[in-house]
Amino acid sequence: MLVLTVIACTAKNGKSKEAEVTVRKAMQEQMDSWNNGNIPEFMNYYWRSDSLKFVSKNGISKGWEKVLNNYNKAYPTPEKMGVLFFDLKEVRQVSNDCVFVIGSWNLEYAEKPNVGGYFTLLWKLKPEGWRIVVDHTS
Amino acid sequence: MLVLTVIACTAKNGKSKEAEVTVRKAMQEQMDSWNNGNIPEFMNYYWRSDSLKFVSKNGISKGWEKVLNNYNKAYPTPEKMGVLFFDLKEVRQVSNDCVFVIGSWNLEYAEKPNVGGYFTLLWKLKPEGWRIVVDHTS
Repeated sequence: MLVLTVIACTAKNGKSKEAEVTVRKAMQEQMDSWNNGNIPEFMNYYWRSDSLKFVSKNGISKGWEKVLNNYNKAYPTPEKMGVLFFDLKEVRQVSNDCVFVIGSWNLEYAEKPNVGGYFTLLWKLKPEGWRIVVDHTS
Repeated sequence: MLVLTVIACTAKNGKSKEAEVTVRKAMQEQMDSWNNGNIPEFMNYYWRSDSLKFVSKNGISKGWEKVLNNYNKAYPTPEKMGVLFFDLKEVRQVSNDCVFVIGSWNLEYAEKPNVGGYFTLLWKLKPEGWRIVVDHTS
């Protein structure tokens, strides 16, 4: 079940719901791409820029290529990719061109224990559409 | 050394630098409070609301009191608190009333190895001033 809570940052126009719906749809597509074993397609919604940032306990990875390489190294086969599920706890437009997301992720495996954790995402409206510009996954 | 990078979310007025300076100053005060062994004072810049969220690998803690209790349990004495240092990698106003921060944290101890990690913060301008509304620490 999706739980939507409000942090009351001000969206700057009436398109708030539209942006939030677009981001939710994009994240559903990301799940589908992952579960089809297609990491480059999963990466389509990450900002294709050297300024993309992926934050974790281990540090900050910068740039789309670097993030793609990290995913390819960690998940070299569909078996290691498992089955991905996002549970979006909050999807909130904080400005005209920024949406903030809080959620949990889970990878289900046939033959080993599931793994999972939480993420916060900053999405920005780019000329090419809404893109993740900062991903913090723990 | 502070490294400031730009994610180019649009600030909605000319007060961007002012907000960023205010948040940087607040985080310096937080370090000082922590290093004086004063957790409630450290918590002053967290939104005093049941909607405050603290995200980690273990889940989402909701509410100012809950976050305070978590800190008090994890750091019951000045010795366990160690010496805190924040390294702010990015402080960026993403809208009129929201600032996004990426940084690393480090706790230095006299008699055991340091611990540390990374955080992303969403600050919001409240009637009482700029406050952290979402903290993701890993």
